[in-house]
Amino acid sequence: MFKQLGLIGCGLMGGSFALALKRAGLVKRVVGYSKSPSTTERAKKLGVIDMAAESALLAVAGADIVLIAVPVAATETTFKAIRQLVEPGVLFMDVGSTKRDVVDAARRVLRERIGSFVPAHPIAGKEAAGIQHADALLYSGRQVILTPLPQTAADLLQKATDVWSGIGAQVLTMSPENHDAAFAAVSHLPHLLAFAYFSAVTNQPAGKDFLSLAGPGFRDFTRIAASDPTIWRDILLTNREEVLKQASRFRHTMDALELIMRTGNGEALEQMIRVASEGRAQWQMGSPRSPSR
Amino acid sequence: MFKQLGLIGCGLMGGSFALALKRAGLVKRVVGYSKSPSTTERAKKLGVIDMAAESALLAVAGADIVLIAVPVAATETTFKAIRQLVEPGVLFMDVGSTKRDVVDAARRVLRERIGSFVPAHPIAGKEAAGIQHADALLYSGRQVILTPLPQTAADLLQKATDVWSGIGAQVLTMSPENHDAAFAAVSHLPHLLAFAYFSAVTNQPAGKDFLSLAGPGFRDFTRIAASDPTIWRDILLTNREEVLKQASRFRHTMDALELIMRTGNGEALEQMIRVASEGRAQWQMGSPRSPSR
Repeated sequence: MFKQLGLIGCGLMGGSFALALKRAGLVKRVVGYSKSPSTTERAKKLGVIDMAAESALLAVAGADIVLIAVPVAATETTFKAIRQLVEPGVLFMDVGSTKRDVVDAARRVLRERIGSFVPAHPIAGKEAAGIQHADALLYSGRQVILTPLPQTAADLLQKATDVWSGIGAQVLTMSPENHDAAFAAVSHLPHLLAFAYFSAVTNQPAGKDFLSLAGPGFRDFTRIAASDPTIWRDILLTNREEVLKQASRFRHTMDALELIMRTGNGEALEQMIRVASEGRAQWQMGSPRSPSR
Repeated sequence: MFKQLGLIGCGLMGGSFALALKRAGLVKRVVGYSKSPSTTERAKKLGVIDMAAESALLAVAGADIVLIAVPVAATETTFKAIRQLVEPGVLFMDVGSTKRDVVDAARRVLRERIGSFVPAHPIAGKEAAGIQHADALLYSGRQVILTPLPQTAADLLQKATDVWSGIGAQVLTMSPENHDAAFAAVSHLPHLLAFAYFSAVTNQPAGKDFLSLAGPGFRDFTRIAASDPTIWRDILLTNREEVLKQASRFRHTMDALELIMRTGNGEALEQMIRVASEGRAQWQMGSPRSPSR
């Protein structure tokens, strides 16, 4: 149970965390700050936060838990703004989809205070961004990855685990490096492919007519193409090394499939599709193995 | 209202059509044939067909409406098997996802009898194939594309339109060529990409660990990778020219996106994502323009 949540960034992710903590009775008071005062005001009107702070630092003052829920690219600036109040015993977390860059920023800015920071990535989201879509159940039944460092305070890591578990999420820990490699593969590359595919289809003379014929397969395949442009710009740039590695693996498989199609080798084509089809049919979301650290 | 439906191929698509016609009171009797006698038997036990025929030709005998719901590659053989009973006044349709090859096969085999054949492609399906997944509502609210030829009998085209409308589908007509180009873009390429992507992710040392971390975006993006291997082998081979054209467009867009990532041009990357994101957010399934014929 926490006394006061300091929420920096009142968007979908931060707002949902605040609502979830309230719903679970895990926090008494939420003090929120957003770069745009109108967003902070809106969060207050919606009951997501109890008090509006005029700066990130003021949102941290008096808090025993702080969530930094800003675009990944704004994390370092946020660390700088709150550094003086990063103290032992107060749990600081983020929600960024990439972790190596966040950890690097934390090392640079927080230095000897880095033990209070537990990097977190909840595997949840919606295409619709913004505080108006905040949802107390967004993290329920989802996985949350924590990427603690050797310096991370053990008691805060435990508190982080408890608070995410307390709102219904399943907590896994791994290294920032393994995190970024894994999510390049299962999240960042699919987004890149969906953006590229949707653009390629629409940017042709008959594109609009084609779109009117698209069915449920297209709908699901392109759902993530509607994701937020600034968030995904940051993710694709900060994790580009791993994403480009995965893109290269994907291209090799496409090369093989296209070659098989050109040569008309039905047997080989069926075999390649069958492996994918059976693998996907067996896959279930959120049935974790113990990921290698 | 039809007297007797001859169903050739008792799978998901054919079975769902039979169930839908029965549900809408549009047919008195369904006579079914499947290549595998156990499938035909199963269809009878499930109440999808009323009588089992021992050959495709026997399924056609006495029917006033015939649905050929076999894999695209088996269409020509089916035409040959039933040719002698393809007569004026009886409506023959297929459900193939590609249309040029089906029309070519019809021209070769049916010749002067081709006027009875109305090529059809209902934009509906499930990843789970087989008669056990047949569903009277599969086509409800979906689009059905008819690709009539100059020789197609006007009264049969009208009957075809009426029967699909009668089970809740929305009927569009276009040329076989435009159909194949459009579906290469909005359906066949996404399947190819999903097969390639799922294979590429799993065929790496940490692939299984990665999969355990995948979330809702991955789930939806890869749903179509679980599609039936033989059906998709046939579709990708029969329509390969158009699919490879679309694949090449896709690769150019990927090249552009990857180059922008490598050069770290955040502004250009955000702009490309934004166009896709806004386009996808505005898209709605089944809001047809009049597709160019």
